Amino acid sequence: MNLKIAALAGDGIGPEVILQAKKALHAIGLVFDHEFVFEDAFVGAIAIEKTGNPLPEQTLNLCLNTDAVLFGAIGDPKYDNNPDAKVRPEQGLLKLRKSLGLFANIRPIKPYASLLNSSPLKKEIIQGADFIIFRELTGGVYFGEKKLNEAGTIASDLCEYSEEEITRVSHLAFKSAQNRRKKLTMVDKANVLETSRLWRRVVKKVSENYSDVALDFLFVDNAAMQIILNPRQFDVLLTENLFGDILSDEASVITGSIGLLASASLGKTNALFEPIHGSYPQATGKNIANPIASILSAAMLLEYFGLNKEAKKVYEAVEKAIEYNVVTEDLNTDSKFGTNEVGDFVANFI
Amino acid sequence: MNLKIAALAGDGIGPEVILQAKKALHAIGLVFDHEFVFEDAFVGAIAIEKTGNPLPEQTLNLCLNTDAVLFGAIGDPKYDNNPDAKVRPEQGLLKLRKSLGLFANIRPIKPYASLLNSSPLKKEIIQGADFIIFRELTGGVYFGEKKLNEAGTIASDLCEYSEEEITRVSHLAFKSAQNRRKKLTMVDKANVLETSRLWRRVVKKVSENYSDVALDFLFVDNAAMQIILNPRQFDVLLTENLFGDILSDEASVITGSIGLLASASLGKTNALFEPIHGSYPQATGKNIANPIASILSAAMLLEYFGLNKEAKKVYEAVEKAIEYNVVTEDLNTDSKFGTNEVGDFVANFI
Ligand SMILES: CC(C)[C@H](C(=O)O)[C@@H](O)C(=O)O
Ligand SMILES: CC(C)[C@H](C(=O)O)[C@@H](O)C(=O)O
Repeated sequence: MNLKIAALAGDGIGPEVILQAKKALHAIGLVFDHEFVFEDAFVGAIAIEKTGNPLPEQTLNLCLNTDAVLFGAIGDPKYDNNPDAKVRPEQGLLKLRKSLGLFANIRPIKPYASLLNSSPLKKEIIQGADFIIFRELTGGVYFGEKKLNEAGTIASDLCEYSEEEITRVSHLAFKSAQNRRKKLTMVDKANVLETSRLWRRVVKKVSENYSDVALDFLFVDNAAMQIILNPRQFDVLLTENLFGDILSDEASVITGSIGLLASASLGKTNALFEPIHGSYPQATGKNIANPIASILSAAMLLEYFGLNKEAKKVYEAVEKAIEYNVVTEDLNTDSKFGTNEVGDFVANFI
Repeated sequence: MNLKIAALAGDGIGPEVILQAKKALHAIGLVFDHEFVFEDAFVGAIAIEKTGNPLPEQTLNLCLNTDAVLFGAIGDPKYDNNPDAKVRPEQGLLKLRKSLGLFANIRPIKPYASLLNSSPLKKEIIQGADFIIFRELTGGVYFGEKKLNEAGTIASDLCEYSEEEITRVSHLAFKSAQNRRKKLTMVDKANVLETSRLWRRVVKKVSENYSDVALDFLFVDNAAMQIILNPRQFDVLLTENLFGDILSDEASVITGSIGLLASASLGKTNALFEPIHGSYPQATGKNIANPIASILSAAMLLEYFGLNKEAKKVYEAVEKAIEYNVVTEDLNTDSKFGTNEVGDFVANFI
């Protein structure tokens, strides 16, 4: 297979971790006889620096005309601490998601057997947990109208959802549940929010096409509790953009490190793969960032193109790295291995 | 002291647990020579049943003309599962918060030494954790305009905040931090939301009056992770309404049971005290609901009126109940004690 892949390293540790994902894909290409061609482009704070725009036209055009996007990370404290900044790195990622129509963000949560002790949660709580969060990614309060009055004393954000936006991501979530343990939990705040009530109505309607999937509902406050109290109860979690952002980061603690979690963002015709961690500026350039999330996002890319044998190989390589303790310091405080060494181990194993 | 207290038992386990809080206050009255007069009134699903209104005028008037409100719980699955219901129990609580101007909800999180093993988190993670969440309670998306188009295909909720709303709750949070470990963490999503950026600006401004308090900022997704990874890092957490709802329920897992957590909702002239758990319909009438959260909310009521010795007595009684394992089944699966027995133990100890 020939694939043209846009590589958007972004900010902070983005460049370091994406390099390891590329190495893994390169190795897969050699072993399984595929050609993966990478084209690099700027996004985020680095793109603002170079062009004034967090998503330069060139980058967007590249992404629109490649088979898939491999994404690093985005964000810079310089902007976070300045509420008055007009241009911010995150706008690049949000605009990219919107422009590529990436309406579904998929985040699998499953602890590694050999890392069961790394979690702040007790082993008996997380053992056997295995669920996927489907987060709607191009609607809700992220993209609703934002206002600030002239005096700068009143601000607002609009959370809006349409039936269509809810329907399309719901179908993906139900299909995934059909291939798993056939349970879908929809998370909302229907006792307060109008958008949540629309979500409930639409999801119920969609569920009629999937009579083999059991559907239940949880309020988001309760869900935030249940994810920690009893993560095994979940199979597929479906939720809106902001709730998905919060809950999937929260759920990452189950695996012991957010540095292990990858995500796929899918649209009708485009797809983007990224670690769920951010740009982690404190670690930048130190060769200590965990590259596994980025490598696993490359595995999700392979699966997306039906290259399941190849993806499996990447998963195996990552499992071996963890088993042999070839991991970065977030997983082993005494580690002698850095970002590069973990990436090399994975590529060599492949 | 003479206090007139409105007792709003509400739905589900509300009546059972509030009864135990009343017993505790009655005992305190006898020992310390105070007169607490309770006036009962309906709120929530039960009020809808009786009057068609989740907050009957009579109830609201009572609350406006008492010294404080003791609140049970609210909610009924009948309404949750019907997105088309026009009247819902929660509206009663929301309207009450708004009408009484209860802009600050205060939720202390601190595990009991003898319950360190009840948490899904490892002991070494939660030991020594001790923080307070200040949640803004009368603004944000809970109270913004809600819309549904006629076709029922597009819904929206508006999240709005004014400088004034942010300022008043921030002052309370900073004052609390001054009396504690002098650290305040503001939680928001300033990389995406306009309201969050207003929060950052205003909180920074307010912080100038509290130069002895160290201020830092966390994005809500990261905060959802940090609360589990390292709860000891927090002293006072300050956040908006919806984030506070999610994070405080999440934080309850630290203590092992949401049945242990109380909250105070304060306004300029009114105050309401309630457990943070909900109406827990599955447990209703079974004498298994944990009354401790409700009893502790009574202790917070005492503190509010400066009755610190009295509040301390209640805390002591609760600690003893936990120490002697006189607890409900959420804390001890083999428990022989029910809601009533725990309440009696506490009242007798006092
Ligand atoms: C960087 C930020 C805008 C982004 C989000 O909130 O969606 C990130 O937290 C994520 O989850 O991908
Ligand atoms: C019942 C519900 C409306 C309420 C809220 O979301 O505020 C509850 O969850 C709470 O936290 O007090």
